Amino acid sequence: MREEFRADLHIVAQLLVDMAESVRAAMGQATRALLTADRTAAEEVISADAEIDATYRQVEERVCDVLARQAPVASDLRAMITALHVAADLERMGDLADHVAKTALRRHPSPAVPAELRAVFTDMSGVADRMAGKIGSVLAKPDAEVAAELDRDDDAMDDLHRSLFAVLLRDDWPYGVETAIDATLLGRFYERFADHAVNAGEHVIYLITGQPTDQ
Amino acid sequence: MREEFRADLHIVAQLLVDMAESVRAAMGQATRALLTADRTAAEEVISADAEIDATYRQVEERVCDVLARQAPVASDLRAMITALHVAADLERMGDLADHVAKTALRRHPSPAVPAELRAVFTDMSGVADRMAGKIGSVLAKPDAEVAAELDRDDDAMDDLHRSLFAVLLRDDWPYGVETAIDATLLGRFYERFADHAVNAGEHVIYLITGQPTDQ
Repeated sequence: MREEFRADLHIVAQLLVDMAESVRAAMGQATRALLTADRTAAEEVISADAEIDATYRQVEERVCDVLARQAPVASDLRAMITALHVAADLERMGDLADHVAKTALRRHPSPAVPAELRAVFTDMSGVADRMAGKIGSVLAKPDAEVAAELDRDDDAMDDLHRSLFAVLLRDDWPYGVETAIDATLLGRFYERFADHAVNAGEHVIYLITGQPTDQ
Repeated sequence: MREEFRADLHIVAQLLVDMAESVRAAMGQATRALLTADRTAAEEVISADAEIDATYRQVEERVCDVLARQAPVASDLRAMITALHVAADLERMGDLADHVAKTALRRHPSPAVPAELRAVFTDMSGVADRMAGKIGSVLAKPDAEVAAELDRDDDAMDDLHRSLFAVLLRDDWPYGVETAIDATLLGRFYERFADHAVNAGEHVIYLITGQPTDQ
């Protein structure tokens, strides 16, 4: 029974690692689509989101199957419930990459992001990439230190988010309300991506240490 | 065992009904705070969100306890996993009411919403209220018809969301970029509140019918 549980847990963890890699790749490609007005790249992100959703359902099915077959208790039960939480966060991160790609498509062939904002979105994408990478790495090899770094990455994302608004609110902002609306929503998508990465990290910490972090 | 499970399920369902009522009240009060620049109302919404989060944790603990004690299978297991999903959606709806309240506070004592947008936010709040009410009612008395109505409510919310952007994008929009940014984010909060209500409804339909709806 114990062996069987470990094998199941390994399969679930591998599905989560795959999801983390997929959402990381999706946000990177969505950012490229956004900054280079690349229609094909945007469409690929949207297709890939269906695969992420399918993997999410696989995690759910596998967890329900384990609960039904093995009726785990204590830390084994906690691991299964945590897997559901992490999968839900990763699924949502995939949705947010999809939203960035759709914003790029909606303005295509014009770029959705004016020159003044390319740097901040490039940096937000860089932080997002680092955070998704850390989720993948702590899932593959649990490490509470790495998971805790996600909080600091999230602070960096928040700083970038504030600097985005500072550009939008300059008196000489020349691009009008429509571009400001797009930039506001895009900023929110990257910020939420980071929030979900932090949540996922907290669940992994809980799994490793048994201690919940403050919500 | 069967009796015990039914009693546990009843407790979990009651916690979810309480959450649905709380998030409904929270979004209503957050909207009042927004439209009347009412600081006290906004602060109450923010305090109440901590209680919603606490109820969410109670649902999780109760579900884990049931899984550990009773090892339910088949439809009983599905009911417990569904409860976790519905609780997560409701918890997020509470966060979104909290975000609306915080937007009201950030601009206080000025109103965050100019006169031209009061009607659309009043209507969005009306749809949000109806949707949260339906979640509460289908949880208390499962009814796939009522749950399905949530899709139509969500269409109404999307129409309102589009009409919000139409106002923001008028050539004679007189309030500048900052107010447009606030309105964009507020619109997103109401729209996401509706999305989570739809998700919660889909989970309840799944519980009633055993058939997943299309994602």
